[in-house]
Amino acid sequence: MTAVAVDLKSMAAAARDAARRLATAATAAKNDALSRIAASLPERSSEILAANSRDLQAARADGLDDHVVDRLELDPARMSQIAADVRNVASLPDPVGEVIESRTLPNGLLLERRRVPLGVIGVIYESRPNVTIDISALCLKSGNAVILRGGREAFHTNQALAGLVRRSLVAARLPEDAVQFVASTDRLLVEQMLAMKDGIDLLIPRGGADLVRMVAEKAAMPAITGGIGVCHTYVDADADLAKAVDIVFNAKTQRPSVCNALDTILVHDGVAPRYLPRISERLWAAGVELRCDPRALSLLEPRAKASGNGPRLKRAAPDDFGREFLALVASVRVVDSLDEAIDHIARYGSGHSEAIVTESTEAAERFLNEVDAAAVFANASTRFTDGARFGLGAEVAISTSKFHARGPMGLREITSYKWVVRGNGQIVS
Amino acid sequence: MTAVAVDLKSMAAAARDAARRLATAATAAKNDALSRIAASLPERSSEILAANSRDLQAARADGLDDHVVDRLELDPARMSQIAADVRNVASLPDPVGEVIESRTLPNGLLLERRRVPLGVIGVIYESRPNVTIDISALCLKSGNAVILRGGREAFHTNQALAGLVRRSLVAARLPEDAVQFVASTDRLLVEQMLAMKDGIDLLIPRGGADLVRMVAEKAAMPAITGGIGVCHTYVDADADLAKAVDIVFNAKTQRPSVCNALDTILVHDGVAPRYLPRISERLWAAGVELRCDPRALSLLEPRAKASGNGPRLKRAAPDDFGREFLALVASVRVVDSLDEAIDHIARYGSGHSEAIVTESTEAAERFLNEVDAAAVFANASTRFTDGARFGLGAEVAISTSKFHARGPMGLREITSYKWVVRGNGQIVS
Repeated sequence: MTAVAVDLKSMAAAARDAARRLATAATAAKNDALSRIAASLPERSSEILAANSRDLQAARADGLDDHVVDRLELDPARMSQIAADVRNVASLPDPVGEVIESRTLPNGLLLERRRVPLGVIGVIYESRPNVTIDISALCLKSGNAVILRGGREAFHTNQALAGLVRRSLVAARLPEDAVQFVASTDRLLVEQMLAMKDGIDLLIPRGGADLVRMVAEKAAMPAITGGIGVCHTYVDADADLAKAVDIVFNAKTQRPSVCNALDTILVHDGVAPRYLPRISERLWAAGVELRCDPRALSLLEPRAKASGNGPRLKRAAPDDFGREFLALVASVRVVDSLDEAIDHIARYGSGHSEAIVTESTEAAERFLNEVDAAAVFANASTRFTDGARFGLGAEVAISTSKFHARGPMGLREITSYKWVVRGNGQIVS
Repeated sequence: MTAVAVDLKSMAAAARDAARRLATAATAAKNDALSRIAASLPERSSEILAANSRDLQAARADGLDDHVVDRLELDPARMSQIAADVRNVASLPDPVGEVIESRTLPNGLLLERRRVPLGVIGVIYESRPNVTIDISALCLKSGNAVILRGGREAFHTNQALAGLVRRSLVAARLPEDAVQFVASTDRLLVEQMLAMKDGIDLLIPRGGADLVRMVAEKAAMPAITGGIGVCHTYVDADADLAKAVDIVFNAKTQRPSVCNALDTILVHDGVAPRYLPRISERLWAAGVELRCDPRALSLLEPRAKASGNGPRLKRAAPDDFGREFLALVASVRVVDSLDEAIDHIARYGSGHSEAIVTESTEAAERFLNEVDAAAVFANASTRFTDGARFGLGAEVAISTSKFHARGPMGLREITSYKWVVRGNGQIVS
């Protein structure tokens, strides 16, 4: 697709220099660059949309799926949305320089822990070109240099967008190499990027489960693991069943293709005969297929037949538990106790988002304490696990790792800190 | 050395179960176990010292260096110190359950970010047997299960100490498998441990630079990188030279074998003719060898000859910059500016501890801002980089990574967090 020779080592060295300068850049300069990016998007829309139509033509010629083509396509409305997102990042507080804690030691040393950028971030992403702008804005605001490796399908669009970002950096008197785009679609470059332990401080994969797994396996540097959610909602013996119907329905159907959508309903034996008929009716009406353990199946079978929903009721296969469906499918299991629900989640969950519905404070607190996941909910939809909804302002990724950052990652979560110590001659005795 | 078959997979599974229980254990139970460990050390000293003398005999028979034998040796005084350290850990606040932040969202959801243990920690360490107790206590207090892999030389001592810890756990009604000792010195087990990505959440190497590098290279899970410090002190044009003499002397000589000891003196050209003679006199008197760049060398040569310190003055080889000496040796370079000092540190530093001596607030603030290291000092000795001295209470390691934790790591730094969300039926619209 391109004959440009890409020298990742030189790019990483330039990124390191740019990161050093960007680490101490004034907030005003960074916001100036962000404003220029937002302003350039409509100003340069003809250039961007021309690049985008080259990509769209190639995608259609290659016979790519309609949903891939759709994700790829930019139009003035989408461009406006991207510009609005950049302005939102500009409006967020600058994480760099924040004093996380400070104290004076008995010997008079003034000690502070101060937030600093991580350094150079590498991003490997798939077909959505908005990621180019989105991640550039988040890295810029947090003082990190970034090396972008976008998907083949969006190559020309991404290249045009990265060029726009770089011009905005120059105009704001910031180092243009703070944002660099890998101008080749050679797959070998991905392998090279993943091996650059000294050149790249953090690798962020943005895309499907296969990409995330590949990066987790191969990256020599720290990498964000996330985006895979096997999410349970447990309807307790003391649940308010009306709430449980609304919450499960929302978690499953509001946007089934995302990682915080529900995959498995666990329901206490004591309420299953009253709850399962109610929730199945709502879910079937929305086109959801239910894959049930034997007890749930026997409760639902007569009803499914009577209502003509037989095709939407199936016996669960063993791998239907612990599976991320990303579609209008849910697995269902009846459990005898809160303990059994917690054990099921410990065994099958992916540590993303887990919920209980109960009016019992004791049951809720046990669930919130004992379930080990990035986000645990009592009486709310798992769909709330999201940087913007949690008030982080923006989101780089949702981490299911326990190391560094867990759950929705905003600007702060792509920073580190340093210990700053001011003395007047103190020595260790 | 032992014929016990070690099944690391079973150990990791048992550790995972124990970690689940320990994660919600009451602070009182954890402190009870810690008190029992501290009390058992003197009570069981004959058993421990007998195991220790087996190791000491073997070490002497193998002709190990005196300093290795010394590190290995326990006596009642050292046992008391270890017990005191355990009591100190018991006295520290429990990090688990700490609410890091909380807020109510506009839709009424109560959101909190709460500290939780990481899970299962693996520790690979060398000959100091106190690490067995030290790390067990820190992991226990922070709710983490631990798998200990100690050095061959201290095998019997470590095994006896781990047994004592496990009995204390049982007595405190905590799961004994929260602390497990790898009862074999087979080197293959280290390779196996480093590959157990799903079984071990964090790997901590405790030992020399070779061990740390090996772990950083081979560990499939997150690992703490640290313990290697190439530390600079820059004596600025506006330095108070008396302070600069005391600080550099302290940083180099107070304990030269540790990672936060000084390796390189950078001195501004404007003060070098006055400063270098004063500091060299102090350092030579303490037996320090100075490896100098040409400018420093020409300033010191006449003086070295006159004072009979010729053998302690050498021309620096290129690799004397960026080198951790861990001995009474320092490299010296004269620079023309603060910028040159900052650039030197960016090129040669290891991101551990860096200091400036200056009375200029502007120079100090530029240095503290622009130098990228775990700890940056103005007018103080780099020897202060330490968990206890920074008020963290105890120290697991000193990280030179920017990911997760940076600098001295106490109890909090071996934890993660979860997002806890309490609602009353909220759904995403």
